[in-house]
Amino acid sequence: MKIYLTPGPSENYFIVEEAIKEALKNKVTAISHRSKEFKAIFEHTVSELRELLQLPANFSMAFTGSANEIWERILQNCVEKESFHLVNGSFSKKFYQFAEQLHLSPSKYEVKFGEGFEVENINVPSSAELIAVIQNETSSGVQFPVENIAKIREKNHDKLIVVDAVSSLPYANLDYSVIDSVYFSVQKGFGVPAGLGVWVYNDKMIEKAKNLEAKGKSIGTYHSLLELDKYAKQNQTPETPNVLAIYVLGKVAEAMNKKGMAMIRRETDYKAELLYHTLEKTEFLSPVINDKVKRSKTVVVANVEKGTSSDVVAFLEKKKILIGKGYGSYKDSQIRIANFPTHSKELIEQVADFLMEYGK
Amino acid sequence: MKIYLTPGPSENYFIVEEAIKEALKNKVTAISHRSKEFKAIFEHTVSELRELLQLPANFSMAFTGSANEIWERILQNCVEKESFHLVNGSFSKKFYQFAEQLHLSPSKYEVKFGEGFEVENINVPSSAELIAVIQNETSSGVQFPVENIAKIREKNHDKLIVVDAVSSLPYANLDYSVIDSVYFSVQKGFGVPAGLGVWVYNDKMIEKAKNLEAKGKSIGTYHSLLELDKYAKQNQTPETPNVLAIYVLGKVAEAMNKKGMAMIRRETDYKAELLYHTLEKTEFLSPVINDKVKRSKTVVVANVEKGTSSDVVAFLEKKKILIGKGYGSYKDSQIRIANFPTHSKELIEQVADFLMEYGK
Repeated sequence: MKIYLTPGPSENYFIVEEAIKEALKNKVTAISHRSKEFKAIFEHTVSELRELLQLPANFSMAFTGSANEIWERILQNCVEKESFHLVNGSFSKKFYQFAEQLHLSPSKYEVKFGEGFEVENINVPSSAELIAVIQNETSSGVQFPVENIAKIREKNHDKLIVVDAVSSLPYANLDYSVIDSVYFSVQKGFGVPAGLGVWVYNDKMIEKAKNLEAKGKSIGTYHSLLELDKYAKQNQTPETPNVLAIYVLGKVAEAMNKKGMAMIRRETDYKAELLYHTLEKTEFLSPVINDKVKRSKTVVVANVEKGTSSDVVAFLEKKKILIGKGYGSYKDSQIRIANFPTHSKELIEQVADFLMEYGK
Repeated sequence: MKIYLTPGPSENYFIVEEAIKEALKNKVTAISHRSKEFKAIFEHTVSELRELLQLPANFSMAFTGSANEIWERILQNCVEKESFHLVNGSFSKKFYQFAEQLHLSPSKYEVKFGEGFEVENINVPSSAELIAVIQNETSSGVQFPVENIAKIREKNHDKLIVVDAVSSLPYANLDYSVIDSVYFSVQKGFGVPAGLGVWVYNDKMIEKAKNLEAKGKSIGTYHSLLELDKYAKQNQTPETPNVLAIYVLGKVAEAMNKKGMAMIRRETDYKAELLYHTLEKTEFLSPVINDKVKRSKTVVVANVEKGTSSDVVAFLEKKKILIGKGYGSYKDSQIRIANFPTHSKELIEQVADFLMEYGK
């Protein structure tokens, strides 16, 4: 059986299969989302995630169908007219386009695909209400160092700052005192089967949604931030949710807490270092991003300098390793390798050896 | 282990556990939603469902996070100003309220909780663009006979008719020539773990969404009907979906096709007849709905005439049978029993025997 190092969905976290079998045995999929059994599952998952992410008390958490849905809900609930977006890849661009589709007037600071942002060049219009930061762009493998978010906050105390950490959590060590919201989907860094988004938000986000609703703006229906929050306070969801994924996510977060985030971060750093070092040494592959501080630790992207991405993918597939091609127009010329907590040091060492052999 | 006869989520369809284990073995949860493996899964699920529901060629299908989401998407995409709602329970009322929350001007024909609609009393305003029919109200157990939908169509050729069959499919034998859309969630009649809604729609729905978009209305973002449809045509979804549930749903539909809908409907009729007959005979329970044609075949609701619903639930729980309490304000005074394809004749016969013993 192949091992998946695709940048999401990716290989399940190692306890997932067991957790699903346990869920089936205990009929977790048959329980009502209004039952005390469900509330206990919800509470366990939230509590383990709070510990894992070290969330302060003024942050809450709700579940949606996907991170894409969270883009939509953020714009509906927390932006009256103008959101400001950092754009440097396909996903950050899509978030900006969502704002246009919802008839808002978004503004942006856009750099080329695969480039990072210079924090001193980020000029947020005073009219913008919310700043959408892309901490880790899954399409291009560029990271925005977490320390730089504080620098944006320094100049923008009156605005909401929401952070896309879809493919970097739980690795990304965020400073929650300088942000208002962060969100992710479970099929990347957490290694949980897809179909669940996690939205973390603080009181300021709630206040904004309340203000917009009071002003007469429609903030949505069953998944408005206020509805999600109202139910989350009772360890529930507005609708029947993906109970199985909520259950499994709790088990994964629990296992990660037992291992410890310090250890997970050290391992991630080591594996990322090894992959980038290998790409620099290989003859026919090279890192897309030159500036080391802008290189994502969790999604490693490389240019293919001999053959196409299909050749690299096929080469590794023969060795039972599955990696991703580049995104969108970089489909043929780039490869993407996930470096998530589920991918062991031994596995990445093996992948590094294989990459050295490519093209020879 | 208890057996769930709660009206959704309910007991898994009998092949679900095996299908999930097979999915894990084949790493279905790790594949990309842009891969050929995913497209094959999507195609298989849609094709089995098309056969099961006997869908005509002018109907297509898309996947969402829940049936609640489909309420929202229908209103965003297919109603400019006015939707008309048949309301006789908590869920049909919620759909109506969604329209208000989206700042539309909905109208309704409302009868009391637990009552059915007299088709000759349904007067749809000429200004309404869309008629929301509740075919089976999960909260009260009232069904709107499928034949009556044709009578609504006779007087309303120019309007869209969308049908809520959340807790009656695949049993409900709909005439697709008189409707434009139907939707359901998978955790009820299909016995699939929750976290997936299925939206079936025809060309007229697409046309309406296109017209509204051309007029300058915002019809949403990643899950607008047009986006969902564009991707569905390529056997894909806009975002990474609940791949596991889509896979399992396909396996369930395949198993149901093998058994045959004629057989499943006959069994459902027999089991429903037995349950209602039992409720009429018992001393301390009685069917909520007197008019036999308005009694749901898939969600059987009864008044508790001795003790409270908790007493009945506890009585059956000792016998390892789990049923639901009444919905909302009927929580204490009513019980709800699911009669889905996964519930065998033998099981329902046993439940009927137990119900006869209650209170004695």
